[in-house]
Amino acid sequence: MKTHSAALVSILALLAAPPAAALAQAAQAQSAAGAPTSMDQILAAAPAGDWRTIDPANTLYLQLAKGRVIVELAPAFAPNHVANIKALVREGYFDGAAIVRVQDNYVVQWAAPEGRPVTGAAKATLAAEFARPYDAGLPFTPLPDADTYAPQTGFTDGFPAARDPATRQTWLTHCYGMVGAGRDNGADSGGGTELYAVIGNGLRQLDRNVTLVGRVVKGMELLSALPRGTEALGFYATPAERVPILSIRLASDLPAADRTPLEALRTDTSTFAALLQNRRFRQDAWYKVPAGRLDVCNMPLPVRAAPK
Amino acid sequence: MKTHSAALVSILALLAAPPAAALAQAAQAQSAAGAPTSMDQILAAAPAGDWRTIDPANTLYLQLAKGRVIVELAPAFAPNHVANIKALVREGYFDGAAIVRVQDNYVVQWAAPEGRPVTGAAKATLAAEFARPYDAGLPFTPLPDADTYAPQTGFTDGFPAARDPATRQTWLTHCYGMVGAGRDNGADSGGGTELYAVIGNGLRQLDRNVTLVGRVVKGMELLSALPRGTEALGFYATPAERVPILSIRLASDLPAADRTPLEALRTDTSTFAALLQNRRFRQDAWYKVPAGRLDVCNMPLPVRAAPK
Repeated sequence: MKTHSAALVSILALLAAPPAAALAQAAQAQSAAGAPTSMDQILAAAPAGDWRTIDPANTLYLQLAKGRVIVELAPAFAPNHVANIKALVREGYFDGAAIVRVQDNYVVQWAAPEGRPVTGAAKATLAAEFARPYDAGLPFTPLPDADTYAPQTGFTDGFPAARDPATRQTWLTHCYGMVGAGRDNGADSGGGTELYAVIGNGLRQLDRNVTLVGRVVKGMELLSALPRGTEALGFYATPAERVPILSIRLASDLPAADRTPLEALRTDTSTFAALLQNRRFRQDAWYKVPAGRLDVCNMPLPVRAAPK
Repeated sequence: MKTHSAALVSILALLAAPPAAALAQAAQAQSAAGAPTSMDQILAAAPAGDWRTIDPANTLYLQLAKGRVIVELAPAFAPNHVANIKALVREGYFDGAAIVRVQDNYVVQWAAPEGRPVTGAAKATLAAEFARPYDAGLPFTPLPDADTYAPQTGFTDGFPAARDPATRQTWLTHCYGMVGAGRDNGADSGGGTELYAVIGNGLRQLDRNVTLVGRVVKGMELLSALPRGTEALGFYATPAERVPILSIRLASDLPAADRTPLEALRTDTSTFAALLQNRRFRQDAWYKVPAGRLDVCNMPLPVRAAPK
């Protein structure tokens, strides 16, 4: 069977299988290919301190019939939206929510039942949180390569990001798996009542036009493989086509036994720096012309099941 | 219902619905948003001569149970691979073929039944066709924006491409929907016996490492929404999970009544130049910060049903 890269074992495979088995499998594939170093080998050698626990208080579970989609929220970039999403969840705003839109090469979007009122501490709309001043102490691991859309790109606490030295602003980037707060035409017309996940190719034109609130860290394939909607913009034509979301909950609101404990690789570590270099210059036997460059949206951001 | 862009009606929607209805719908959405010009309005104003017939002799049909996936082959870039794929198809090499691999954010790959011999005029492997000299008269409509992976990007006869003035070479780029010939570790170990379509985000590191042979021009959602494989590299774990391909045929080998006549917008026209500008600087009321830039993989390449 021909493969694009014997070395590339997906991060999701690492999560789905027992890590040791997955890594052994990767090492075997690696050895067969005669390649010197793989991403999996670099990850296997990482000290425990290079991983951080994904905070259950900033973790959203979307329970679908086929499994759990897990979103890490990004309060450092969208503090008000994240707080509001938590309030909406706790008010039961999303009870009976469904995926209403799957636009090929674009986004999957979900919403509460039509007409559902926003109650309690939650707000229907918020001021936009498109970008942040970057002198506020947000960590940033820059990529050295040119980017089409921003003066500089990189990674901040496990999220893909960009920044502009001229304005000293930083923002999250619309890469695969990023989650944002849908809005109407007004910049301040979002707030978290409708959320979308990026399933498309480099929707970077949306950067600084929508508030990004987090990233899918597990279960992305449950969204990306959904049937595409046939109406304009990928909306499902009939309510029957909508994909029910059985529940949306904060991990910290569930008993510990019902959680899915995850760790994310810190993006300010030498392990991550080694992964970046490995990804810029592929070392396995398959590649003939290493790109020597990397797009910010083309870097896997490792997540694993927390060791017991 | 909140939408990212009232103006963005997908090209697939144009194909699926009667063009007039889709355009009227787009115009209505446009008018509601109060935006000056949409891609659909530019397309609606294009003279007939800005469209070209997609040549049935260079069109591959993959018939799935759920519909037809249509691939336009690119003989200008991969003449030997395209000729070989036609020979394989005509020898019946792909009879009983199936989709064997769906790796999330990467590729969908299909193959003949294991052990199927290559017979007749077809060859099992071919010398790589990774890039072409660009003095050979290949048209190129350049994008003015910086690219992470190549000195210059643009479009050539409806395909996304890149080139390097230093080597005077040009090559097709691994954008969403592009189709390539899988290979083993040897550069010359491909040939078209296994093909893949890109469903992932900017797999540009594969450029000049695999021979690209064409692009999916219709039916992409039939591939991109397939269940992901759970084995390493997204291979299906069991033969039962594989998605049968009922037939793979050249359009020109079918009676005219069984074909799906398509037209592609010429990429060397003022219409396409206007679309590029529209896409670089979004004009509808939704966008607050127009990117002013465009990634080569982020440009829809319009295809429509041929007018009767």
